[in-house]
Amino acid sequence: MRALYPSEYIPLNQLIIGNKNYSSWSLRPWLLLRELDIPFSEVKIPLYAEGSKEELLQYSPSGKVPAFCHESVTVWDSLAICEFVVDLYPEKNCWPLQLKDKAYARSISNEMHSGFFAIRNSLPMNCRKKMVFKNISESLKSDIDRVCEIWRICREKHPESGPFLFGDFSIADAMYAPIVLRFNSYGIPVGDTENDYMNTILSLSSLKEWVAEGIAEKEFLADCELEA
Amino acid sequence: MRALYPSEYIPLNQLIIGNKNYSSWSLRPWLLLRELDIPFSEVKIPLYAEGSKEELLQYSPSGKVPAFCHESVTVWDSLAICEFVVDLYPEKNCWPLQLKDKAYARSISNEMHSGFFAIRNSLPMNCRKKMVFKNISESLKSDIDRVCEIWRICREKHPESGPFLFGDFSIADAMYAPIVLRFNSYGIPVGDTENDYMNTILSLSSLKEWVAEGIAEKEFLADCELEA
Ligand SMILES: N[C@@H](CCC(=O)N[C@@H](CS)C(=O)NCC(=O)O)C(=O)O
Ligand SMILES: N[C@@H](CCC(=O)N[C@@H](CS)C(=O)NCC(=O)O)C(=O)O
Repeated sequence: MRALYPSEYIPLNQLIIGNKNYSSWSLRPWLLLRELDIPFSEVKIPLYAEGSKEELLQYSPSGKVPAFCHESVTVWDSLAICEFVVDLYPEKNCWPLQLKDKAYARSISNEMHSGFFAIRNSLPMNCRKKMVFKNISESLKSDIDRVCEIWRICREKHPESGPFLFGDFSIADAMYAPIVLRFNSYGIPVGDTENDYMNTILSLSSLKEWVAEGIAEKEFLADCELEA
Repeated sequence: MRALYPSEYIPLNQLIIGNKNYSSWSLRPWLLLRELDIPFSEVKIPLYAEGSKEELLQYSPSGKVPAFCHESVTVWDSLAICEFVVDLYPEKNCWPLQLKDKAYARSISNEMHSGFFAIRNSLPMNCRKKMVFKNISESLKSDIDRVCEIWRICREKHPESGPFLFGDFSIADAMYAPIVLRFNSYGIPVGDTENDYMNTILSLSSLKEWVAEGIAEKEFLADCELEA
């Protein structure tokens, strides 16, 4: 695919996100754009506050974050944004290059996008949280096991080219980054390979910046905190 | 993007699906392949039966249908399969051609893929069902309203080029087809534009074939039937 703009032109990219402390879906495309060095400006709309739905709807027809505005084109939904970025910046290799790896990366990214409800419900993303979560139900355990299996398979297939799921950073890493934060927040026990992978993500300066800003936010959203 | 194979070669495509009566996720890529005239063979694995999980895992690492095998490459998850088909068959225009339309189509497809839980939970796909569902909760109503809004916006933007969401058939239609079946099964009231769109989908000979085979299946899955 050809590049859409001449190289000297910087198109107008805006990423609309929610609270950094809580918004796991917002983190995904944000991390992708940062790790691939794609310039964008950030529009933060604190969620579930007065007037925030109306503000959201000005950008995002679904009334949810994240949304992405590129020139006059709007895309919403984390994974749709990532696939849109693939088309806009073909030279950035957002997906692994080999067809087999790309197919695998897309499958696990979509599996994440539409599943793992026990993780989402029981372990809400919360950059401020640091605890050991003990109450692991059967469905939560099965979600955790599947995530660990995915990370292990990917890392064992790609041991050399780099420390990410497919060697170089790709959309798959962006999709799983909120899970890394959750496992870290809630002290979920994992194996060595998974632990190494988590450290790779946790050491990214972009991710550290996100977390620091999340922690510094003033909003406390009771509905997004762990149920007692 | 170039075509991957010379035009006289037909690559080996296998789509692994569940029960046609119940498996809404399986219908999505199946309909796409049929509507775009992409040759494939169908492997049906009746769900939640003895041995079916083991059989599923031979094809699909997530243990879920649908999965797609193309030569030696495996992809699983409905939307990952659709996006993979985009790469394999660039000449088929699986997405609308205009960047703006493609962005919109991808957004609504991903919105469907990761949301609409009230519709999924309250109105399970069931080709055999024909009734008027009355017990419409607030969250179900808001899901239905959003689907109707999406269909209306798309049809009003693309009144001329064809009867589908973006004129020609695209992945977006495949993603929403199970919702059309559900609204039809449960007698959900919709406006004229939405009704016309539903008729477009319900009249497809491919969809009729799917429904007829679903109805003819012998399995009755109590867990996939509407809760009493
Ligand atoms: N499937 C969507 C999920 C987006 C989503 O649920 N966003 C939440 C915050 S992480 C939101 O915007 N909630 C605000 C609201 O519903 O009012 C995606 O992948 O982007
Ligand atoms: N996100 C997946 C969902 C797949 C899914 O939930 N499939 C169901 C049937 S429609 C399944 O395989 N269930 C069998 C099982 O879980 O054992 C997709 O889009 O393909």
